[in-house]
Amino acid sequence: MALCGIDGQEAVAGDADVPFTIQAAANPFAYALALDALGIEAVHEKVGVEPTGNPFHAIVLDPRTRRPFNPLGNAGAIAVAGAVPGRDRGESLRRVLDGLARFAGERLQVDLPVFLSEQATGHRNRAIAHLLRHFGVIQDEQAALDLYFQQCSVAVTCRQLARMGAVLASDGVQPRTGERALRSGLARHVLAVMATCGMHEASGRFAFEVGLPAKSGVSGGIVAVAPGRFAAAVYAPRVDGSGNSVPGVAALRELAQRIRPST
Amino acid sequence: MALCGIDGQEAVAGDADVPFTIQAAANPFAYALALDALGIEAVHEKVGVEPTGNPFHAIVLDPRTRRPFNPLGNAGAIAVAGAVPGRDRGESLRRVLDGLARFAGERLQVDLPVFLSEQATGHRNRAIAHLLRHFGVIQDEQAALDLYFQQCSVAVTCRQLARMGAVLASDGVQPRTGERALRSGLARHVLAVMATCGMHEASGRFAFEVGLPAKSGVSGGIVAVAPGRFAAAVYAPRVDGSGNSVPGVAALRELAQRIRPST
Amino acid sequence: MALCGIDGQEAVAGDADVPFTIQAAANPFAYALALDALGIEAVHEKVGVEPTGNPFHAIVLDPRTRRPFNPLGNAGAIAVAGAVPGRDRGESLRRVLDGLARFAGERLQVDLPVFLSEQATGHRNRAIAHLLRHFGVIQDEQAALDLYFQQCSVAVTCRQLARMGAVLASDGVQPRTGERALRSGLARHVLAVMATCGMHEASGRFAFEVGLPAKSGVSGGIVAVAPGRFAAAVYAPRVDGSGNSVPGVAALRELAQRIRPST
Amino acid sequence: MALCGIDGQEAVAGDADVPFTIQAAANPFAYALALDALGIEAVHEKVGVEPTGNPFHAIVLDPRTRRPFNPLGNAGAIAVAGAVPGRDRGESLRRVLDGLARFAGERLQVDLPVFLSEQATGHRNRAIAHLLRHFGVIQDEQAALDLYFQQCSVAVTCRQLARMGAVLASDGVQPRTGERALRSGLARHVLAVMATCGMHEASGRFAFEVGLPAKSGVSGGIVAVAPGRFAAAVYAPRVDGSGNSVPGVAALRELAQRIRPST
Repeated sequence: MALCGIDGQEAVAGDADVPFTIQAAANPFAYALALDALGIEAVHEKVGVEPTGNPFHAIVLDPRTRRPFNPLGNAGAIAVAGAVPGRDRGESLRRVLDGLARFAGERLQVDLPVFLSEQATGHRNRAIAHLLRHFGVIQDEQAALDLYFQQCSVAVTCRQLARMGAVLASDGVQPRTGERALRSGLARHVLAVMATCGMHEASGRFAFEVGLPAKSGVSGGIVAVAPGRFAAAVYAPRVDGSGNSVPGVAALRELAQRIRPST
Repeated sequence: MALCGIDGQEAVAGDADVPFTIQAAANPFAYALALDALGIEAVHEKVGVEPTGNPFHAIVLDPRTRRPFNPLGNAGAIAVAGAVPGRDRGESLRRVLDGLARFAGERLQVDLPVFLSEQATGHRNRAIAHLLRHFGVIQDEQAALDLYFQQCSVAVTCRQLARMGAVLASDGVQPRTGERALRSGLARHVLAVMATCGMHEASGRFAFEVGLPAKSGVSGGIVAVAPGRFAAAVYAPRVDGSGNSVPGVAALRELAQRIRPST
Repeated sequence: MALCGIDGQEAVAGDADVPFTIQAAANPFAYALALDALGIEAVHEKVGVEPTGNPFHAIVLDPRTRRPFNPLGNAGAIAVAGAVPGRDRGESLRRVLDGLARFAGERLQVDLPVFLSEQATGHRNRAIAHLLRHFGVIQDEQAALDLYFQQCSVAVTCRQLARMGAVLASDGVQPRTGERALRSGLARHVLAVMATCGMHEASGRFAFEVGLPAKSGVSGGIVAVAPGRFAAAVYAPRVDGSGNSVPGVAALRELAQRIRPST
Repeated sequence: MALCGIDGQEAVAGDADVPFTIQAAANPFAYALALDALGIEAVHEKVGVEPTGNPFHAIVLDPRTRRPFNPLGNAGAIAVAGAVPGRDRGESLRRVLDGLARFAGERLQVDLPVFLSEQATGHRNRAIAHLLRHFGVIQDEQAALDLYFQQCSVAVTCRQLARMGAVLASDGVQPRTGERALRSGLARHVLAVMATCGMHEASGRFAFEVGLPAKSGVSGGIVAVAPGRFAAAVYAPRVDGSGNSVPGVAALRELAQRIRPST
């Protein structure tokens, strides 16, 4: 586990510098970058902001809009990836990696073997991408999928993920570099979506028990944000049926109890 | 509109003393009272805490648990009503009215004609109640329905509803009477569920735009809470397809923009 | 098991004269009587004719029409019961019992203890009835439910049920009395709906394996019809998760294999 | 329109020799060939035989089995295509074309421009194929999709399609060549599935009104079978929201009324 305050101060416990692939924990940052680059309205033509009670594995679009319910599930994240501008795939990837670097305060790398493996096996995500193409949400499903798989395969450590979260805690400013990673006023929107949709179909229980906007990845990482204060990142690979790290959720539950008095 | 701070100070605009029936805006208070009286675990055997993407009119239980998804929709509120203890219907109703009075700081009355009308016409809610009885969530569907209809028919003013919300803003203490209406530590759970589920299938968008835990009623009332600060109540009868007051949501959106700097 | 040919000849095996309650095996006959009394169009304003992949216990209306999918499931049968004309409940019941008597060639009786028991416990059916009332499919849900419960509680023997089915095999003429129970041309419509919807969510498999229009009841009875030839009725109480008698389906599968050459 | 009796006699009206692409009207024949080549059990590990109330455009597998509901919708037909044996794509395609030729009594050709166009645009079918691959129903989704698109792009005339249907009417024997296209005993299973699932979510209504097992294609063709008597094929491009030819259904409704007395 690692914590990073909005003043840049850090606290770590355990193997906070062990890298793992970020997986869906990248989704709120990619969404934030899309809001910044394209504006709220343009992004919301591609993806909604509503939680859904559907189980993790469902392939469902919002029947009223034929868009993904929200940008933090697979469908929504692929839709966001499909909206990243760029003359070619290289430029789109560079945009995403540059953006994630502004969050982390340092360059991050794609774990190429993981990317190639996901590219070869992600049939559920391919199904989603073709469905999005069918309904006109994305135009080039191969490019969107590759970018999504690359983004999921970015390697981070808990320390780095906590720093990325801290940018959301401080309204878009990277606390250690002092540089603005995101236009002011956008972080609160991203946090709102994390609060309602960040932990898949267990988002409500996580809000009830922990009460921090958060986003999990299937590799076992979770980033959680205490707005105006700090961010925490945990990594522990055992995930439950909702795709959330079991020890990670437990650690955040305990953290939330300790920090509560000062709220 | 009315505001009530955790120090008991009030501000009102417009017809803040016009009574209307509280409808589903009573649900978070009834849920809070149930958590207080029965404990979290007992209540969660009857109802979950997850948002659902299902439209307002759907009659659906969580397929994994056969309980309502959350306590703020109709199904969940009827399940909570069915769990209120009492030797007879009179005692259960007295418990609810006593509890709501602790929130409001004064007695509230059931609007009897509205209750009788809802009792006579609420076929969708009757369908839900029989479904809950079928799955063993409630034992006496007629008593649960009557209590639910009575609770929905309680008359409040914006001023009163804001005072009720202020109890949730101040961790359970009624700011004007100074009396504790709710055990400490429970209000944050109720607020978490309001944040994810309070505005029906538009909860995500409300969180995105306004960012305050809130609950709407189909009569046009909404109560919203700024934790640790104040609560606001609005009343304007025109509701949208999700059952949320259109002018009410607009007013709260503007309020949220004005209060944000100080957050 | 009992068979009854369109010439009135019978063959029985086992306890063909043991009475049991007809349950949903009454539904095709009630539907036939409704088509006869009200006309196809009037009935189809209340209920569709489409099979549904939904599991047996689902409470779902066709989302395109807000009517039950078909008249052979619980929802559709309650909708049909709600459409039976009559100045009062007694007259509606008399109409149904008279109609069933024309099919059976003799009077049939409601098993009163079974009716009272179903009336006291059928919460799922009550939920359905209130939903139908909510969407305006029926007007008096208590009367419709009582009539439906009474119709389900009619006691029949295999011999009688086979005779009832034989009326559908001979285009509406009761083969033993020679009297017309149904206007000519209607039986084929009823058989079409039995072929696609008669065995709940196992209708497709039954059509694949047995190939006869049929209808099962949860008490373990099944009536199957070989159009233009005969009807068969089986009764064996062990039902599977789809509500179909397991030994009954096996017996009909074997029967179908034996009769095939002559088809 | 064209009719072909089990004695090989034909009757045509209108442009019965105008070619069109067969589309989903090929599905029952491909299913029959799979039953013949692999056996019932092996095929039913890949696809069920149940109708579904889901609308035409839904991408849904049977939640109980994670297989397509039936072999006549897109998902099921792709699953069947994925089960066609062959060392390479050429051999699989040859098998299908050889099989269809046995039904038609002459060689049929793939309309290559139509195939290439479908291959380029069929995003919904690609989504389905990846979903099937995800759940292990098919192993090579590209090969299955290409075979499915090729099969859909086979050009037929009404006359040819009626001859194909006549094979199902005569338990597998091509009435004009006298050759057996299908093992005896399989046609009745195929007809059972056509009767319950052949007209998409309008299968129930078609059974009610027309009463013949049938299969429609989105190009406007329909093949209908009077078992033991003849088959009819119609072609008229205007299709309704369920993907069924509107004039085609009307023509078959009239045909059914005329042939009924002799049934």
